[in-house]
Amino acid sequence: MTEFIPPGTRYHALPSPFPFKRGGQLLGAHVAYETWGTLDAQASNAVLIVTGLSPDAHAAANADNPAAGWWEGMLGPGKAIDTDRWFVICVNSLGSCKGSTGPATINPATGALYRLQFPELSIEDGARAAVEVVRALGVAQLACVIGNSMGGMTALALLLLHPGIARSHINISGSAQALPFSIAIRSLQREAIRLDPKWDAGQYSEDSYPESGMRMARKLGVITYRSALEWDGRFGRVRLDSDQADDDPFGLEFQVESYLEGHARRFVRFFDPNCYLYLSRSMDWFDLAEYADGDVLAGLAKIQVDKALAIGANTDILFPVQQQQQIADGLRAGGADARFIGLDSPQGHDAFLVDFARFGPAVGEFLSAL
Amino acid sequence: MTEFIPPGTRYHALPSPFPFKRGGQLLGAHVAYETWGTLDAQASNAVLIVTGLSPDAHAAANADNPAAGWWEGMLGPGKAIDTDRWFVICVNSLGSCKGSTGPATINPATGALYRLQFPELSIEDGARAAVEVVRALGVAQLACVIGNSMGGMTALALLLLHPGIARSHINISGSAQALPFSIAIRSLQREAIRLDPKWDAGQYSEDSYPESGMRMARKLGVITYRSALEWDGRFGRVRLDSDQADDDPFGLEFQVESYLEGHARRFVRFFDPNCYLYLSRSMDWFDLAEYADGDVLAGLAKIQVDKALAIGANTDILFPVQQQQQIADGLRAGGADARFIGLDSPQGHDAFLVDFARFGPAVGEFLSAL
Repeated sequence: MTEFIPPGTRYHALPSPFPFKRGGQLLGAHVAYETWGTLDAQASNAVLIVTGLSPDAHAAANADNPAAGWWEGMLGPGKAIDTDRWFVICVNSLGSCKGSTGPATINPATGALYRLQFPELSIEDGARAAVEVVRALGVAQLACVIGNSMGGMTALALLLLHPGIARSHINISGSAQALPFSIAIRSLQREAIRLDPKWDAGQYSEDSYPESGMRMARKLGVITYRSALEWDGRFGRVRLDSDQADDDPFGLEFQVESYLEGHARRFVRFFDPNCYLYLSRSMDWFDLAEYADGDVLAGLAKIQVDKALAIGANTDILFPVQQQQQIADGLRAGGADARFIGLDSPQGHDAFLVDFARFGPAVGEFLSAL
Repeated sequence: MTEFIPPGTRYHALPSPFPFKRGGQLLGAHVAYETWGTLDAQASNAVLIVTGLSPDAHAAANADNPAAGWWEGMLGPGKAIDTDRWFVICVNSLGSCKGSTGPATINPATGALYRLQFPELSIEDGARAAVEVVRALGVAQLACVIGNSMGGMTALALLLLHPGIARSHINISGSAQALPFSIAIRSLQREAIRLDPKWDAGQYSEDSYPESGMRMARKLGVITYRSALEWDGRFGRVRLDSDQADDDPFGLEFQVESYLEGHARRFVRFFDPNCYLYLSRSMDWFDLAEYADGDVLAGLAKIQVDKALAIGANTDILFPVQQQQQIADGLRAGGADARFIGLDSPQGHDAFLVDFARFGPAVGEFLSAL
């Protein structure tokens, strides 16, 4: 599975054993990460980025890997997350297949891949692993922790469980608890993978791989990551040329179908199915209300940060902006100077990955004012 | 497949051959329908209902079948569609498996089920078949044609292709053309069925049936027929009791997952997979703009009705209310007294099937004023 991992990735060994919230533990586990910029003498300019389900730690080009990263438009010298000022750390989520220990990693106890022997993964486990990296880099307190999508959940867990770990927080298209519409979509994505006979209870190989299930899961993801509004303008009812169209009965005919197919094909072999299942389910389980007798706002109010920004796209159907509004409200109730911004990006949940014209200034102004 | 058909269903034989818009034809085909109320001496009080993808013709209890129908709350004596005043006809869509000729019907030319030998079905074919029923019942002009969801497309095709067929029109959660978000969702539903090895290019049997594919397709349907807002209130993060939860790895845990599973199980064996594929694709193909050089509003403006109402739910993500607004705008441009109402139903696309408190008065007032 090493083809998943970008060159130049660095690794931090986690304490061994590394126990999990829901039981079980990892031995000899590690977290993949990358950094940009220089930590100042007081170790006061560090910014941590925790990611969505699928990204690796290569958020942007750096000395170790000059290839463009998945957040190249946001991160770099003079950009919204200005690496001339900030020392930026991006970690690959624990449980992923992009360098951190996960279900596609060899279990030292057996010499075979963990697969479904990996312990039940919680968002909180990923948060704790990220904190280990931060501390190992000599940072006692972050200037800011930035979390996108699933990373928005990870950041909230990290802030709640490690009081004082950060002075500020930017939550982008995140959520303080999974709600049933998102759970339903993720459950269906997982079912698509599990129903593929080649998934084989997690025992697939490169030669017998649950490609159909992964393709279905990814297509459903792409549909819910974007918005109807964007697609109306982008694809309309344009049909494929006859040489691109699919001759199968009920095969591809419209450009939007081909777009989904292309996205799915690019994803299928670049993300491990078992890792996908574990990370997906960790989101369903996440609920800050667990820490405050079922009251999610009270859970948020337990978080101690000076300043916070919760932003999202008004067209997001997976992590709707009401959830970012709630994050700002809860953090404000906990004493933070917290602001919510709903941006008119047409691109839905994925807007933060593409609409730098809107997300860039919002993030940049917040960080500049720190 | 006769178990799909409600008792008391009536049949009208279509002209034979019955040619299809995209080529091919049916021999000896028929349309299933039911009626309520009494046609007056001038045959001036007839109302036609054309349906969404899955309903049969049994919209409500009647003398032939006293069981409650799928629109029981809207149709009956003193109800919004008042059968004391109106003679109401509901047809089962051509291509369905609920009584009308479709892919699950025996092809008289071969003595075997049509399956994928059924000609490519268009919304327009269903519209023309419905008009045959109306005329056979002695109705030259309908007082109103009411179309829900896919039936909203059917009704527009029927009005455009048969000028003067109706004096008024109610379009409920319908659309004048399929847009890419809905196409993408339907394409994925069809792919789930086609990917199921038991679909077997349409050659499945009762004993080897594409149950997994149909279950996936239905779950995706239910997700997109409803709304996040409704589910937040209805399910929240409630978990199943341990005796209901699924022991499979990544199995059911939340109530919303069990709700989807229940819906899927009820549907899977009660709708024919090939019929589903044909009807689903007919929606993707539908585009009134075809009749007006690519201008959908101009296509709508060619329709001649005196009065029209286009309504929908503001939470609908599959046929968003902008599409019902467009229908009202286009019909108005064609000279109709046309009104749009976006209702604050939380139930999304399916609201018209359950939120009688909002849809009932809107429909009832329109019909009362005729």
